[in-house]
Amino acid sequence: MTDERRNLARRAPASYGKPAGEGLRARLFEIIFESDTPAGRRFDKALIVVILLSILVVVLESVPSIGARYAATMHVLEWGFTLLFTAEYIARLACVRRPLRYATSFFGVVDLVSVLPTYVSLLVPGSAVLLDIRILRLLRVFRIFKLTLYVEEYTRLGHALAASRRKIMVFLSVVLMAIVVLGTLMYVVEGPENGFTSIPMAMYWATVTMTTVGYGDITPHTHLGKAIASCMMLLGWGILAVPTGIVTAEMTSQRLGRRGPRTPERGCPGCGSTGHDPRARFCKDCGAALSPPSDPAA
Amino acid sequence: MTDERRNLARRAPASYGKPAGEGLRARLFEIIFESDTPAGRRFDKALIVVILLSILVVVLESVPSIGARYAATMHVLEWGFTLLFTAEYIARLACVRRPLRYATSFFGVVDLVSVLPTYVSLLVPGSAVLLDIRILRLLRVFRIFKLTLYVEEYTRLGHALAASRRKIMVFLSVVLMAIVVLGTLMYVVEGPENGFTSIPMAMYWATVTMTTVGYGDITPHTHLGKAIASCMMLLGWGILAVPTGIVTAEMTSQRLGRRGPRTPERGCPGCGSTGHDPRARFCKDCGAALSPPSDPAA
Amino acid sequence: MTDERRNLARRAPASYGKPAGEGLRARLFEIIFESDTPAGRRFDKALIVVILLSILVVVLESVPSIGARYAATMHVLEWGFTLLFTAEYIARLACVRRPLRYATSFFGVVDLVSVLPTYVSLLVPGSAVLLDIRILRLLRVFRIFKLTLYVEEYTRLGHALAASRRKIMVFLSVVLMAIVVLGTLMYVVEGPENGFTSIPMAMYWATVTMTTVGYGDITPHTHLGKAIASCMMLLGWGILAVPTGIVTAEMTSQRLGRRGPRTPERGCPGCGSTGHDPRARFCKDCGAALSPPSDPAA
Amino acid sequence: MTDERRNLARRAPASYGKPAGEGLRARLFEIIFESDTPAGRRFDKALIVVILLSILVVVLESVPSIGARYAATMHVLEWGFTLLFTAEYIARLACVRRPLRYATSFFGVVDLVSVLPTYVSLLVPGSAVLLDIRILRLLRVFRIFKLTLYVEEYTRLGHALAASRRKIMVFLSVVLMAIVVLGTLMYVVEGPENGFTSIPMAMYWATVTMTTVGYGDITPHTHLGKAIASCMMLLGWGILAVPTGIVTAEMTSQRLGRRGPRTPERGCPGCGSTGHDPRARFCKDCGAALSPPSDPAA
Repeated sequence: MTDERRNLARRAPASYGKPAGEGLRARLFEIIFESDTPAGRRFDKALIVVILLSILVVVLESVPSIGARYAATMHVLEWGFTLLFTAEYIARLACVRRPLRYATSFFGVVDLVSVLPTYVSLLVPGSAVLLDIRILRLLRVFRIFKLTLYVEEYTRLGHALAASRRKIMVFLSVVLMAIVVLGTLMYVVEGPENGFTSIPMAMYWATVTMTTVGYGDITPHTHLGKAIASCMMLLGWGILAVPTGIVTAEMTSQRLGRRGPRTPERGCPGCGSTGHDPRARFCKDCGAALSPPSDPAA
Repeated sequence: MTDERRNLARRAPASYGKPAGEGLRARLFEIIFESDTPAGRRFDKALIVVILLSILVVVLESVPSIGARYAATMHVLEWGFTLLFTAEYIARLACVRRPLRYATSFFGVVDLVSVLPTYVSLLVPGSAVLLDIRILRLLRVFRIFKLTLYVEEYTRLGHALAASRRKIMVFLSVVLMAIVVLGTLMYVVEGPENGFTSIPMAMYWATVTMTTVGYGDITPHTHLGKAIASCMMLLGWGILAVPTGIVTAEMTSQRLGRRGPRTPERGCPGCGSTGHDPRARFCKDCGAALSPPSDPAA
Repeated sequence: MTDERRNLARRAPASYGKPAGEGLRARLFEIIFESDTPAGRRFDKALIVVILLSILVVVLESVPSIGARYAATMHVLEWGFTLLFTAEYIARLACVRRPLRYATSFFGVVDLVSVLPTYVSLLVPGSAVLLDIRILRLLRVFRIFKLTLYVEEYTRLGHALAASRRKIMVFLSVVLMAIVVLGTLMYVVEGPENGFTSIPMAMYWATVTMTTVGYGDITPHTHLGKAIASCMMLLGWGILAVPTGIVTAEMTSQRLGRRGPRTPERGCPGCGSTGHDPRARFCKDCGAALSPPSDPAA
Repeated sequence: MTDERRNLARRAPASYGKPAGEGLRARLFEIIFESDTPAGRRFDKALIVVILLSILVVVLESVPSIGARYAATMHVLEWGFTLLFTAEYIARLACVRRPLRYATSFFGVVDLVSVLPTYVSLLVPGSAVLLDIRILRLLRVFRIFKLTLYVEEYTRLGHALAASRRKIMVFLSVVLMAIVVLGTLMYVVEGPENGFTSIPMAMYWATVTMTTVGYGDITPHTHLGKAIASCMMLLGWGILAVPTGIVTAEMTSQRLGRRGPRTPERGCPGCGSTGHDPRARFCKDCGAALSPPSDPAA
């Protein structure tokens, strides 16, 4: 596992290009982008703390009572964080071999977007709403997670979801279709006088109902509407049992070490077919001898 | 799998009858009903786009502000879509060998219902409500899905549900019984003065509660009622864990490549071992030829 | 399976005692209590229809508009059903060998309770509320289900739940404890002025929240209360994932044909230990040879 | 299992130190802290009943109508329970070898906190709110559960959760991130005039929505807000399918008697076969002696 983690940790920033040699830039790259060295790990931990603090400031600033009383303190803190992140952004740009590739990568854009709003709010008056974009700083935490501690679990969860991609697409298309058709049905049955003012509104209601959220801001009032809604709830629960089934089935089979991405697939030397039982000794398609089964415990 | 998909794609429209030979009708049939040829695939993609656009028009028309302002544009677009779908319907009728069988098939009826409301609204004034039936056009997307991309996943999900048919029936009967009995209990306990105006109303409330939707339009007001409702919620959650369990168990066992107790297990004639892949042709333990696999699509 | 079903079908009524010989009483017993003969099956089907119709009358009677308009018709229908069920009850009493044992059995009591309310309402004026007890007639449908069609699925679902009995008890005790402790916490934090008028009321709210029903009749108003409630929702979801896990794990392992109740447990002839792998040939505890594994596909 | 249970029962109180010999203190220790002897079991059962009764008094006292009418009775009962628990606390202190270690242990603190509020309320007037801390007495039931009946199931459920610790951490971090980012988005879109008065308030709403609780105290009012909320519900359901998947996968693999990839698989020295029962001592395929099983309790 350590190998895989190290590979993954190296691969992503490698596309921006680690500078060659052992100079200052290479050292900076190791600290900022990697987490193999003690300095790199310390940098990552400090960065997470700073990011979470800056998020806390953004969140607290929005609370009227706090935002009004500590406006000055917040302002100073915010500029402190912005300058810090700006310095970090410049350092990142400086130490990669291909700055443009970094700047246009997902995390490069997030890094830029994390600092821009504060400067823009200085230049353009009345752009206070823009400031909330700073919440995207939170996404930067993912980069560090990706490199360090939970990489293994993230990859496994990601694999489980990716392996079920098509199933989830099919499921979503069925759910959306049910929402459109049943929403329209309720729009016709209940009508605007009961809160179903348009088909999009009825679709919103259908989503609220089928996901069992059930705000209660719009509810059926006619007898027929209530009957249909009751059926939709039971149906909705049935339909929504499917994603749980998909995810669970994927996880269980990974957990049982069967057909998971970890077990190397043995190809038949005779016919090239795959999907053999882990303990099979002969090809199930052509009967040729297979390579001996790998240790399932590995 | 490709074989199975091709079979499935051919079987359904085949019942309407593909015209013999290589004439114009046969070519038209290939384009409209099948998706094996490039032209057929292009037709399918175009049809999906047109259907989704026409659904968008129906949905937007229902929004008061949009429907009023762009009434004329909507009207023109609607007639455009209707004429297009009418032409398509006639083409479908023209190119099948058994037009009547197509016209009375599920998708034949949906195709007709998709265009009729617009014409009817022209003849019969005040039938505007009927127009919303056009939303059923959405079902036509299923036909294309069925033929093309997601056929495999659809079939697999369908199998998982079909295999659990009896379990789901049992589960539904228990849930309905609980809803009737507990709804009546709450009707007696709470009474009409607390919103439980009749047993059907109380059953609606019981459904809303046990599926954890919880609108809050009707809530228990007496102490006893609240106590019973609390038990129902816990019970409801327990009961509703069952469909998830059913679907998940089915999916997991499919995912693990094991069949249920119903599928006969093939034993190896050479060494007697079992647990072979459903499509295996040779024993995985000794390499002897197995009896031919039963048709998994049956 | 047929054997087991037949056994189950015979065992339950057998405790009331099937009359010996082939006389009229034995024939009646076969028709009323059993479902092996064509006449027995016809009787069961007719009984289900009558029960469901009588339930429908009870339900519709409670709707003010219908109950008032068709009062006379309902009255007549109700007496018809009551007399029919009374006749059936007497017939059941008459044809069993131990009438008292039948009368005190679960279904015997349900049968009596199904007809009593109508007679009582005749004698005691103002006992209209009692009439709703008739809804328990619905439970009688279970008897027929039990004997016939879905017996296998019912037993399997029942086994899955029974096998998880202890796990469910543990889970319930944890949930109840969380409801009591967290409800009290919210009662202290929010207080009577925000709707949390007493600890039982707060426990009701905690149940509504943790089961994700969320009526919204009581909601937290203070900042601290909202923070605690948010944690409770996430916690609640986590806790409530457990029953799904329990039921699913049980079903999956039954579905995979492992350790299910169906596989006969092989005991070791040497040391008597059980729990051997279905394909094991030697005792895992003492190494003695086991009886050959039974065919897992059976 | 009996061994493991006995070990577990002895280990926990053993850290406080069972007095040596067979004197009065050792006998008291056995009764109060252990549940191996009949006297110990009787003590445990009596304690559970008393604890539940005292909880009932606390709960009922909070109901205005009951608390006012039976104030005197409640007061007497409360002092009775407090004196009883005080005596028990002193007895526990007296019979352990290391009283300080017991007093600072989790259950030692809970035992103290269970009796303190009543005394404090006597000394400090106006500390009535403090009295509700007595609800923590409920936690004491856990100690007894831990020692006795359900120890096995608790440990198994605990193992299942502990084994998924990292997965659950990853899941929680993703959920919290989604709540922060989507909450802020809705704060910007809906604004204070629609109830989203601050980012923390919007985060509360996001939690209520994504866990499908859906109180309805805050609901989106703008069209864009409703569209985003609909997506969040579907997304939320998808995300929340993950903990169910995690718990279920863990339980299923436990149920199937398979250990995770972490537990080393024992191969038979005779025939090399794997898949042995964790506690097997002999190979199930050839009967050769296996290496001793690793301690499953570790």
